[in-house]
Amino acid sequence: MQNFTWHNPTALIFGKDTVKELAPRLKADGVKGVLLVFGGKGTFKSGAYSQVTEMLSKEGIAFSEVNDVKPNPLVGKVRDGVARVRAGGIDAIMPIGGGSAFDTAKAIAAGSCYSGDVWDFYAGKAKITKALPIYGVLTASASSSEVNCISVISNPETEDKISMSNPCLYPKVSVIDPSFQVTLPEKQTIYGGVDIIAHILERVLDGNEECELIDGQSYALIRTMMRVIPELIENPKDYDARADYALAGAMAHCGFLSVGREPRGDFSSHKMGHSISLLFGAAHGATLSVIMPAWARYLYEDNPVPFARLGEEVFDIFDGSDEEKALEAIEALEDFFRDINAPTTLRELGVKEDDLERLAENAAKLLPYGVLKELEPEDILEIYKLAY
Amino acid sequence: MQNFTWHNPTALIFGKDTVKELAPRLKADGVKGVLLVFGGKGTFKSGAYSQVTEMLSKEGIAFSEVNDVKPNPLVGKVRDGVARVRAGGIDAIMPIGGGSAFDTAKAIAAGSCYSGDVWDFYAGKAKITKALPIYGVLTASASSSEVNCISVISNPETEDKISMSNPCLYPKVSVIDPSFQVTLPEKQTIYGGVDIIAHILERVLDGNEECELIDGQSYALIRTMMRVIPELIENPKDYDARADYALAGAMAHCGFLSVGREPRGDFSSHKMGHSISLLFGAAHGATLSVIMPAWARYLYEDNPVPFARLGEEVFDIFDGSDEEKALEAIEALEDFFRDINAPTTLRELGVKEDDLERLAENAAKLLPYGVLKELEPEDILEIYKLAY
Repeated sequence: MQNFTWHNPTALIFGKDTVKELAPRLKADGVKGVLLVFGGKGTFKSGAYSQVTEMLSKEGIAFSEVNDVKPNPLVGKVRDGVARVRAGGIDAIMPIGGGSAFDTAKAIAAGSCYSGDVWDFYAGKAKITKALPIYGVLTASASSSEVNCISVISNPETEDKISMSNPCLYPKVSVIDPSFQVTLPEKQTIYGGVDIIAHILERVLDGNEECELIDGQSYALIRTMMRVIPELIENPKDYDARADYALAGAMAHCGFLSVGREPRGDFSSHKMGHSISLLFGAAHGATLSVIMPAWARYLYEDNPVPFARLGEEVFDIFDGSDEEKALEAIEALEDFFRDINAPTTLRELGVKEDDLERLAENAAKLLPYGVLKELEPEDILEIYKLAY
Repeated sequence: MQNFTWHNPTALIFGKDTVKELAPRLKADGVKGVLLVFGGKGTFKSGAYSQVTEMLSKEGIAFSEVNDVKPNPLVGKVRDGVARVRAGGIDAIMPIGGGSAFDTAKAIAAGSCYSGDVWDFYAGKAKITKALPIYGVLTASASSSEVNCISVISNPETEDKISMSNPCLYPKVSVIDPSFQVTLPEKQTIYGGVDIIAHILERVLDGNEECELIDGQSYALIRTMMRVIPELIENPKDYDARADYALAGAMAHCGFLSVGREPRGDFSSHKMGHSISLLFGAAHGATLSVIMPAWARYLYEDNPVPFARLGEEVFDIFDGSDEEKALEAIEALEDFFRDINAPTTLRELGVKEDDLERLAENAAKLLPYGVLKELEPEDILEIYKLAY
């Protein structure tokens, strides 16, 4: 096991009807005005918006809004939020939504404490040293943004989608009320679930053999996710399945499943997926169910052990050589994605064969990445071809 | 899943040669003088004492000592520490050791900020509202005291051993360097391991059926512990096994395995074990390998499901009725304890048949407890008889 430091300062309030538990905390912290950051109708439909604004009104806390935040959130919306904070009266940021709302809120929280343009942080031209406190309300699990210090923002001008992390960006408090997720469109439950599974797999499949304890925790979480996604397709209102999904969603990418590993996971599938979202507007989770199996097929023969172990731990595959078990596990993973109606080919995402080179060029901009295999531009093209 | 709040503010520094990482944190926090709290020769033998004092000297931080802290630590030693803090020059407490050093340090940290006698907190006569910061160095895993806000202190005058928790008692920083544990006596590795397994089992066996995700995490941890204890008996210097043991030890009782459950575990075995330690000086872990199987045998017939599930998840027992699987699982647990040379009868702890009533009277002082079955004084006596 490698050395590590673990310190996650976010206070997590989890369960039914818990938005109201924010009130005493906001009061104790002396918050007078918040900037609500959210998307659109999902925030209203879930009931989260009305619960939050009712709570704030009751406490006499003023609020302004930045709304219409989209999936793969844009730097322009962040700049809008920073401008609103600079206009005055805001001392905390409150995302209501999923990863996009939280990621945007984090960027606004940091950008508001910086005199330059917020994109500087993502372009590596400046480092965050301060941010406004974030009190968030989660309505869609997937990114773990509610309990981590990562923010992923896209810039259409430069065709960049960049993930950045800084300890100042941990939410101070996050409320996860799984009952808000009952109204999610089925596709979002599926894609969010794929994202959560990918966050776990990308660590456990990085070829690091020194972390059996954390691997055991990870496999148990994957089994939970593979149980609850089909349960929620069957019955979207199953509260206990929603709660397991939401808690697994928080754990998957909060950082804990990386402790003791160095490097801390192989996020090639996420990187290659980002380019598909950026250029073709595909849902983040949908890019992962396409890329992960293709990435795995491309390199399992040289690295069969982690895939064979996945087969044993998750799919009860015990017979055959490591190579045979590995291939069977990759097929089982792809079958699972297909069974829950997640796409497994680039064609399903509207990508044409002619687009593959352009995709590969875009994904190569983020190099270097890849741990199990350090990828070269030609590897990326081959993986996209396999995924096609 | 039940509602919960999760907020563990302790920063955990984990790995080889990590004591030195305390230095910049102490400096940043403006610490000028610390009170070292430790036991005896183990602290020196592990190398922890010399590393800590060297680091403090180098940083120009003054230190005083309260030493000779014993297992089942006593309130008298806490009072000594409080008196030392009151004498001046101390602004932080630094336990070096296992649960006893940490529990004592927490009591000193709180007692130093209170004008009355520190036992008031344990007797329920006063509530902690403030404590000095704690920077700890762990040399023996078992209690999770390094990452929780619990302190267990014994008072021989009143024949009480009382567990108390308060959020002010979370260590600010804990260093876990698993290599310090290489020099532990074999018995301590075994008993610490039993304690860790008990902390996990006491939650997963509480009859709460709503927490499959957390149960999955718990079973994976138990499997890890049952792998590494025999590995460490075979080779005490196996660093990776020490690291898995130490990380499992921190996770077991940090509070996370209780989230979503209400009540948050059935700690009857711990309560009944405390009386054996108090009256017969038995090692804490040794009381648990005796009591847990007896407790389980006493009530599995009315509650076979959690024990049957334990059989499936940990011992690969899949055949038979729930009752049959449950009994087989309890026998397998007892066999495991016997295989690692942990005691499984009260006789091995020096208890005589005549002592059972006195033991039961002492353990009844802490009633009410018991979740799977709420225990009455006569149940306690029967369980001690089964354990005899």
